[in-house]
Amino acid sequence: MIEGIRLGTTYAGIRKKKIDDLTLFEISEGSRVAAVFTKNAFCAAPVTLAKNALAKTQPRYLLINAGNANAGTGQLGIQNAQRTCEIVADLAGCHSDQVLPFSTGVIGEQLKVACFESGIPHAFQNLQSDWQVAANAIMTTDTRPKMCSREITINGQAVAIRGIAKGAGMIRPDMATMLAFIATDAEIDAEQLDAALITSTNKSFNRISIDGDTSTNDACVLIATGKSNVKVDPAESEVFQTALDEVCTELAQAIVKDGEGATKFISIKISGATSQQEALDVAYTIAHSPLVKTAFFASDPNWGRILAAIGRAGVANLDISAISIQLDQLRLITKGEPDPAYTEAQGAEVMAQSEITINVDLERGDFSETIWTCDFSYDYVRINAEYRT
Amino acid sequence: MIEGIRLGTTYAGIRKKKIDDLTLFEISEGSRVAAVFTKNAFCAAPVTLAKNALAKTQPRYLLINAGNANAGTGQLGIQNAQRTCEIVADLAGCHSDQVLPFSTGVIGEQLKVACFESGIPHAFQNLQSDWQVAANAIMTTDTRPKMCSREITINGQAVAIRGIAKGAGMIRPDMATMLAFIATDAEIDAEQLDAALITSTNKSFNRISIDGDTSTNDACVLIATGKSNVKVDPAESEVFQTALDEVCTELAQAIVKDGEGATKFISIKISGATSQQEALDVAYTIAHSPLVKTAFFASDPNWGRILAAIGRAGVANLDISAISIQLDQLRLITKGEPDPAYTEAQGAEVMAQSEITINVDLERGDFSETIWTCDFSYDYVRINAEYRT
Repeated sequence: MIEGIRLGTTYAGIRKKKIDDLTLFEISEGSRVAAVFTKNAFCAAPVTLAKNALAKTQPRYLLINAGNANAGTGQLGIQNAQRTCEIVADLAGCHSDQVLPFSTGVIGEQLKVACFESGIPHAFQNLQSDWQVAANAIMTTDTRPKMCSREITINGQAVAIRGIAKGAGMIRPDMATMLAFIATDAEIDAEQLDAALITSTNKSFNRISIDGDTSTNDACVLIATGKSNVKVDPAESEVFQTALDEVCTELAQAIVKDGEGATKFISIKISGATSQQEALDVAYTIAHSPLVKTAFFASDPNWGRILAAIGRAGVANLDISAISIQLDQLRLITKGEPDPAYTEAQGAEVMAQSEITINVDLERGDFSETIWTCDFSYDYVRINAEYRT
Repeated sequence: MIEGIRLGTTYAGIRKKKIDDLTLFEISEGSRVAAVFTKNAFCAAPVTLAKNALAKTQPRYLLINAGNANAGTGQLGIQNAQRTCEIVADLAGCHSDQVLPFSTGVIGEQLKVACFESGIPHAFQNLQSDWQVAANAIMTTDTRPKMCSREITINGQAVAIRGIAKGAGMIRPDMATMLAFIATDAEIDAEQLDAALITSTNKSFNRISIDGDTSTNDACVLIATGKSNVKVDPAESEVFQTALDEVCTELAQAIVKDGEGATKFISIKISGATSQQEALDVAYTIAHSPLVKTAFFASDPNWGRILAAIGRAGVANLDISAISIQLDQLRLITKGEPDPAYTEAQGAEVMAQSEITINVDLERGDFSETIWTCDFSYDYVRINAEYRT
């Protein structure tokens, strides 16, 4: 639990499968909320509303539904999302701008407002302090809930951070991922809270990709309730930032490990780049290559595909005779040449692991980046071919 | 046949499957040859050699092997490719720079030169004018050969153009595709021939993508033997260019239709863009989305995925309220709003077709582009997971 946060869930009939699909976060008065949202130009109606509302006032409620993304739904989608916020506001006695809506699920279908009218009162009745039910209720194609917490000590006093996230497909977050909600009982300035969230998401949610598809509904919210009465002053901000980084990274990695059809967790570390962007370009080109991903699924050390991906990453004047590539500690390419000590048997052994790191040293600069991705299996095709059936 | 070109094939033992894997093109003296090659920085040894040789002299032979890409093979790979050219040159009595090598197959394995020593004499013995055998011998994961020809009339005289191509995976050509060989008996200036090839490849091979992976071995060669004694003078260049465009486009589309595991042929037409690059960025973002590709495989009109792909294509200040999207003639989105007349049944009907066009009008400029791609099936995963086994 996080003091100052209560959560209520219910099955409102928004998705077909009869598991809770509606979640309400109640945030105590005086809390501070920071959020980052998708950069997808076709952002969903709830994203548009939540951004506007957050610019006006501090939220008291988060309303989250699974089963329908309310994206690609035009003006009616905006009206429907607005209406669901009004239902919460009416019951709670607050302004509808103090309710932030979040949706995840199928794109292009209108929200059934009636489900919210009947469901929201139940969510209110169920408000309590355990996060586990909410971690379950926000899932779509996820196979397991994603939750993480840290206890830290600031000026000798205990502070807690807790977060949940969902996401398994359409994952290549750009600013934030497909719904993550994090809260702390620490007290933090609004500016400091925003900065902490941006710093952490850039190291975690913005460093993962399952299929290269950026969702229309990505959002990551950080709430500081202040109920611990512990102030995170600038001198203590590093302790808080480190713990927040850890929570965000653990949630982000949990999303990749639960990637649609994923059988392997792959870290891609690029070093020796001339800029952060160059390192990320190479890393994501490898991460998005269907050929690299299917080779990992097959546990086939077909490293030529990694090399081909690096070669097409668009790096200007890339000198391939400087590049070295390793799978974990196993050398594949040393300064552009196949490593003489490499054997296919060694390659097969590393590829059989469930967690593998691809290390690429471009040896042309001082920038490094690490991202996380997964393999590409029959099940990814099955899950996404059958998604709406 | 094309007068001035003879082709010989043989099984040299380079690939496991016992079908011809070695092809020799003999080009008559006085022919002109133009070629474009992959922009992948990790280009294969034969690409490096062929580029260098072409800069020095006019080729008399093309030596093509399937089963081994000779890419990622370092200095030894270069030496081996050079040695295979010398074997041809010794038998033909020409300089080894007059032999251009081409390889396709697995990346990262050294070429077995012994196979070339025993196989090349057989290829010489088999030289004849029929192209069909060569179209078969250059295939790897292709399920069918790709050949195309045109007869045109220039100044009242007959001229022929004929081409073959291979490719089914690692297909997102950047300058040229995974091995295409085209010849004409017309007589054309070197400069004009280069320009014609670049013009045609930019409309054809550089407008297709199967999986977004640019090969290390892409090459497209255009040979003008001049044996028809018909000169393509500037006044007639349009007739020639149009026929060459048609040959290249037909071959490029044949590659997509034979894409690994492909069940559908998808054209993506972007109009109303502010630049050619903007149109291509949107088109390729749709083409490379695994979610769009699996929806097409499932014949599921899940158009939200097309919309999400457009939204993440990186177009600056994209106004989604101006965008219209159609599947063939069926309106999905009209000026940013879901089209009121659209029904799921109509969507399902279009998606059931084997050939489908996605039309996207950005309505912000005058540039248009069309590219071709295919869907993403279980078989793509199977073919690429099992590729080396």
